[in-house]
Amino acid sequence: MAKEITPRSEDYSQWYLDIVQKARLADNSPVRGCMIIKPHGFAIWEHMRDALDIMFKETGHVNAYFPLFIPKSFLSKEAKHVDGFAQECAVVTHYRLKTIGDTPETRQVVVDPEAKLEEELIVRPTSETIIWNTYRDWIQSYRDLPILINQWANVVRWEMRTRPFLRTAEFLWQEGHTAHATADDAMEEARRMLDVYATFAEEFMAMPVIKGIKTENERFAGADETFCIEALMQDGKALQAGTSHFLGQNFAKAFDVTYLTKENQQEYVWATSWGVSTRLVGGLIMTHSDDDGLVLPPKLAPIQVVIVPIPKPSPALDEASNKIAAALRAKGIRVKVDNDDQNRPGFKFAEYEMIGVPVRLGLGMRDLDAGQVEVARRDTKTKESVPLENIDQYVADLLVEIQGALFERAKAYRDEHITKVDRWEDFEKVLEEKGGFVSAHWDGTTATEKEIKEKTKATIRCIPLDGVAEAGACILTGKPSTQRVLFARAY
Amino acid sequence: MAKEITPRSEDYSQWYLDIVQKARLADNSPVRGCMIIKPHGFAIWEHMRDALDIMFKETGHVNAYFPLFIPKSFLSKEAKHVDGFAQECAVVTHYRLKTIGDTPETRQVVVDPEAKLEEELIVRPTSETIIWNTYRDWIQSYRDLPILINQWANVVRWEMRTRPFLRTAEFLWQEGHTAHATADDAMEEARRMLDVYATFAEEFMAMPVIKGIKTENERFAGADETFCIEALMQDGKALQAGTSHFLGQNFAKAFDVTYLTKENQQEYVWATSWGVSTRLVGGLIMTHSDDDGLVLPPKLAPIQVVIVPIPKPSPALDEASNKIAAALRAKGIRVKVDNDDQNRPGFKFAEYEMIGVPVRLGLGMRDLDAGQVEVARRDTKTKESVPLENIDQYVADLLVEIQGALFERAKAYRDEHITKVDRWEDFEKVLEEKGGFVSAHWDGTTATEKEIKEKTKATIRCIPLDGVAEAGACILTGKPSTQRVLFARAY
Repeated sequence: MAKEITPRSEDYSQWYLDIVQKARLADNSPVRGCMIIKPHGFAIWEHMRDALDIMFKETGHVNAYFPLFIPKSFLSKEAKHVDGFAQECAVVTHYRLKTIGDTPETRQVVVDPEAKLEEELIVRPTSETIIWNTYRDWIQSYRDLPILINQWANVVRWEMRTRPFLRTAEFLWQEGHTAHATADDAMEEARRMLDVYATFAEEFMAMPVIKGIKTENERFAGADETFCIEALMQDGKALQAGTSHFLGQNFAKAFDVTYLTKENQQEYVWATSWGVSTRLVGGLIMTHSDDDGLVLPPKLAPIQVVIVPIPKPSPALDEASNKIAAALRAKGIRVKVDNDDQNRPGFKFAEYEMIGVPVRLGLGMRDLDAGQVEVARRDTKTKESVPLENIDQYVADLLVEIQGALFERAKAYRDEHITKVDRWEDFEKVLEEKGGFVSAHWDGTTATEKEIKEKTKATIRCIPLDGVAEAGACILTGKPSTQRVLFARAY
Repeated sequence: MAKEITPRSEDYSQWYLDIVQKARLADNSPVRGCMIIKPHGFAIWEHMRDALDIMFKETGHVNAYFPLFIPKSFLSKEAKHVDGFAQECAVVTHYRLKTIGDTPETRQVVVDPEAKLEEELIVRPTSETIIWNTYRDWIQSYRDLPILINQWANVVRWEMRTRPFLRTAEFLWQEGHTAHATADDAMEEARRMLDVYATFAEEFMAMPVIKGIKTENERFAGADETFCIEALMQDGKALQAGTSHFLGQNFAKAFDVTYLTKENQQEYVWATSWGVSTRLVGGLIMTHSDDDGLVLPPKLAPIQVVIVPIPKPSPALDEASNKIAAALRAKGIRVKVDNDDQNRPGFKFAEYEMIGVPVRLGLGMRDLDAGQVEVARRDTKTKESVPLENIDQYVADLLVEIQGALFERAKAYRDEHITKVDRWEDFEKVLEEKGGFVSAHWDGTTATEKEIKEKTKATIRCIPLDGVAEAGACILTGKPSTQRVLFARAY
């Protein structure tokens, strides 16, 4: 069978697009930069969403829904915020179409110029402004705080260069927006949600992440501090996988949201916001997949186990397959029995490898007579014969093992690709030849950060939270520095 | 305590708005016609969504996601479809803002005239066009059929008169879009999903519905046949709660979607679409609630049981409350223990009645010593003392009983408000004095239907699926008719 996917070594970028297409994750759409998330891709996102939603609720959050549209004047109220988003806003200017032309040939549907909005509406790029305008009505006293709300929604940022999941004009995400009485409470919340994201990335996506702080230059437009989780893809480029912002009182001041303290004082409210998006699906693909297709961690795999009768379905094999499937389902495992009789096992194997099913059971009559089944792992591509007795427990344990093995493999790769560098020539060389994170000293200025980016395309991904104080000299300017930061080329 | 809600008898419309506000379901937003769904309202929608999603998956459907934006030319491809939606479309014409003015005083954010889209984008009012444009690529042969896809999404229809949940410019919904090889398959699907909706309405919402067919005049723009479920609100007005459309080959022809049959012929594909929306929350409110607030069927109540220590929390009462809560949670019941010590029981009772918690347990020291607890039902407002022993089973049974009782009560009201009428003067009188559905003969013409609407504001809600053939004379024109249809004033 011909290889269907461009190998990573040949063209990593094309390999990624091939996976997205051949594993049936997403399609391009006729709307520039907007993707169609296909059922298999969407099912992965659903598992992500459900797991995150539980974690959000366990940390005291509730879901709500705010309007898709934001009045233009709202976006403008926070100066840095509008500067950050104005360049990429989809703008609604009219609310009606009309048909002109009397004959079928001349008939044409046009925007009705008489249905022009008095104030243009922005399709939300993020919802801080509309939400803080609402919080003004919801918050009077300290008794109304904290407000811990999350929203699952679509947002639009008119990006010029797009790539499925990683950067699209419309994307799906969640955005948490919380309001607090004190700076400490808000900071604690921002850090808590960063931890939730890191836990999710590592325990569900099997994707190791570094928790850190963004530099001023990379900060969210309107935040006082942006925390992030940064992951490393197989091509040595970093991916910002989630951000959690301490917004200070910026939006409270822009929207005049104050509360009465216990001491009877009016104070501005403190805020956080935090979000992860369908970009995570892109990160998932690039963390684990290989030249045969998608590799999925079991916790997020829409199908965790597939059972394939060999060489083809028969009453005896179907009965045995269904019995195994029932036992697995009783353990909460997502199983498919493939009793399609059109395609041969080899075709099916390639197909399930392509879409990333973690475990495949191949069951032939000889196996059945011998009381065993062939178990194949997607991650290692290894196979072994396993007794049918207690196969349910065996598979349940194997899924746990695979989940752990994927994480360890990704972590080993990531750890090997954090390189401490102290000389500029090494800095450039490591970025060019090895990739990954470069841990280096930086003088703390935006000017230096920008100059390094111009020279190398590398940006400061974060100042790691677990970094240790260490006197050093800036990798570019030689000026004094107190801590190493992580540079990388990034998605 | 002063009544906070306008009584239904005084002003039903204001009562509805009061419930939405006081039960904290939704807020108005600064964007015309768009609502903010508050956490309590959204939690109800989440329970609806989760139950429906399971039913969709059990009937073989998978979820996917299509773009928010639809190129204007797509909407125009199906002539009836564009006529139906052109009047209420939000149109994106630009993709960037820019800042003008050099000083903070003159600084202004405006739409950048240079960032005008070549082709305007419509914010989806429904997704048939963009989806059928995609299906053209996905469907080649009969092996690709059926396609059974659902999407949970926001849509926008620029309505002039809006009301929270019932009619809003932006609303949340699901839209199923299926593709089939034959007309029979598509018709079967449209009917299957109508049944799913009816089952959901009756078993989860405890809202009895009538399944029927829409007249040509009330049909979805682009459908060959629209099936609907119609419910009756407490003020005698009907509510269309869900629709399922047999689209024939209309969209396949508009987007040139053909498939190769087993017999090697190219044929156009057959289609259905079906949807329910956050409008269901409005229907839920108006089916069960009373002058004290929201009444919720247990299956959709975010909090099913609240435990209130009386007169206030204490270590002994907290311990007992937590023990009861744990036993209830072990039965899968959603419980809240209210150990707030700021408010008195009377205040709390009113509050939980307002937000529609189906069962309230009041636990005082004397109860505890006597081994009992006071159980109050929201639906009947009755209370009784119940032994603490096996209270978990008692409450579980009670929730089932309440679910059934709400349905029976609503059904009795609905059945009393279906009136057979054979004379025009009775038709007007019943609509004016009693309300509800009027079962009458109709001559089958749109002209008559429109004239009746002008005279009485009543529309034909549906031709009931379980109606029997019966010769008669049209209620307005006296012309011959073969079946009764249901008229009503409607939301």
